[in-house]
Amino acid sequence: MHSSFPQKADLDRAYTQVRKYAHRTPVLTSSAINNIAGCELYFKCENLQRGGAFKFRGATNAALSLPQDKLQKGLATHSSGNHAAALCIVAGMLGVPAYIVMPETAPAIKVAAVKGYGGKITFCKPTLEARESTLNQVVEQTGATFIHPYNNYDIIAGQSTACRELLEDVPDLDAVIAPVGGGGLMSGTALSAVNFGKKGIKVFGAEPEGADDAFRSKRDGVIYPSVGPKTIADGLLTSLGDKTFPIICELVDQIITVSDHEITAAMRLIWERMKTVVEPSGATVLAAVIKSGDLFKGKKTGLILSGGNADIPKINWEL
Amino acid sequence: MHSSFPQKADLDRAYTQVRKYAHRTPVLTSSAINNIAGCELYFKCENLQRGGAFKFRGATNAALSLPQDKLQKGLATHSSGNHAAALCIVAGMLGVPAYIVMPETAPAIKVAAVKGYGGKITFCKPTLEARESTLNQVVEQTGATFIHPYNNYDIIAGQSTACRELLEDVPDLDAVIAPVGGGGLMSGTALSAVNFGKKGIKVFGAEPEGADDAFRSKRDGVIYPSVGPKTIADGLLTSLGDKTFPIICELVDQIITVSDHEITAAMRLIWERMKTVVEPSGATVLAAVIKSGDLFKGKKTGLILSGGNADIPKINWEL
Repeated sequence: MHSSFPQKADLDRAYTQVRKYAHRTPVLTSSAINNIAGCELYFKCENLQRGGAFKFRGATNAALSLPQDKLQKGLATHSSGNHAAALCIVAGMLGVPAYIVMPETAPAIKVAAVKGYGGKITFCKPTLEARESTLNQVVEQTGATFIHPYNNYDIIAGQSTACRELLEDVPDLDAVIAPVGGGGLMSGTALSAVNFGKKGIKVFGAEPEGADDAFRSKRDGVIYPSVGPKTIADGLLTSLGDKTFPIICELVDQIITVSDHEITAAMRLIWERMKTVVEPSGATVLAAVIKSGDLFKGKKTGLILSGGNADIPKINWEL
Repeated sequence: MHSSFPQKADLDRAYTQVRKYAHRTPVLTSSAINNIAGCELYFKCENLQRGGAFKFRGATNAALSLPQDKLQKGLATHSSGNHAAALCIVAGMLGVPAYIVMPETAPAIKVAAVKGYGGKITFCKPTLEARESTLNQVVEQTGATFIHPYNNYDIIAGQSTACRELLEDVPDLDAVIAPVGGGGLMSGTALSAVNFGKKGIKVFGAEPEGADDAFRSKRDGVIYPSVGPKTIADGLLTSLGDKTFPIICELVDQIITVSDHEITAAMRLIWERMKTVVEPSGATVLAAVIKSGDLFKGKKTGLILSGGNADIPKINWEL
């Protein structure tokens, strides 16, 4: 394993820090879904994590890794999704401010969520430039620390704790699979599998066909930006970063792409059979396992259900 | 308590029989929902029961209460919903046949579910007369025992085990609330509350406004048939029976009616905040608690989430 990657000691420190605050999420199984998939599946339910997604783990570890004086000035980011919500929850928990930069066009439901968690919102024009310049301004004015949603080793080490708990509960997994967006959860999952899984454990990623930049990046050995992604899995739109890309290249065996139709069908299976609400991004892992039947046949496979935050009435089940 | 009602010994026997086969379903809490409701809520998740509903409990107790030679000839009923599914699962588990009479007009999804659980279906015209005469024929030809979905003391005692487990987990509940359809779950819940709850525990029922026959029946002391019920809570359409009605009259403090709009809003809260899929009938209990704020203010309240079987993409969230 490359020496720049988070090492076992970093993962241990993250584990110790995160477990103090995060829910130990349950691992669910479903014999009905096992029959459909032809393998033994263990679902790590990060949809039941605080804030409804694994993001709470990374945010906690990143915050607790700051020096006290830096931490007191607050946390900042430019996400409108689960990372922003998680950062707000962590900030509230630690009694420090959270500054969130959001495009003026962000859906009301996401604005309300961040406000509900006590975040201080600064709106910007919906462009990459405006987002970055606004964030820089906020950081300058407040002294808060920018916590990148995924391209940050403390975040990655924090996300690794989900797979680590899963491996504690089911130590003999033959394979694990996580969704790939910016690659924070994927990198963390791979690091835990390699460090704490059984010898030879396979590591897979699941990515929407309509946002398959990680698949292509890994194949060609170069980071492709995610341009005009189009998928129902709205948590997986971003490009890999220069910290997540090398980890994924070295430690992930294969990225499997899935269509929105396959994601929606898998999501429905999880909701109907396991009665648990996962967001489309979280359902990609089951879609990938079902699609790649032979690859997983008879294997004990762990799936990271990354989150459960969806605008439920707006889900298009006809995809 | 009236001497014809199931007695403590009957409830104990049901408890012993049911626990061998049923899932011990979890009790979930949500601080977000507590804040909204202004009280401390404990959700007994029967949506995670085998077959996706509490009905498995009653069906198990009814089947195991039959003499062996009767049981071997099989179980029969005329439901197309959760009771039919539960009866099929129990029959399969005990190695005996299940005969289900369904109207020709039953939705394909329900027919598929019963078939999937190994039930033998006989279709009939969609009238009450055809249903009963067809069922009588099936029973005559096969020797199977008709298990009524609710108007049966063994069923009622079986359903009582959900609230009993809840009271084991949270012994000092001030109140419990269950949905009211035919009254099997409501009667069982009331019996457990009175026999195993703390002194003075209050017992509430939740019923859709569009199917408020139990509310009116209790008020006027006479069983009104459920005529042309109209509600999204499709598990609560039936009338009370002559076994459930007296129990509800004597042991239930109050039935609270809720609109489809209130049911849908409560269902959405449960799905979004607790990430657990309940069917509309199951959400009536939270709708009733939220609607009747003062009644529950500051009270530790147990809610029976009766089931989680819904045709998810078809749910109308705009009600």
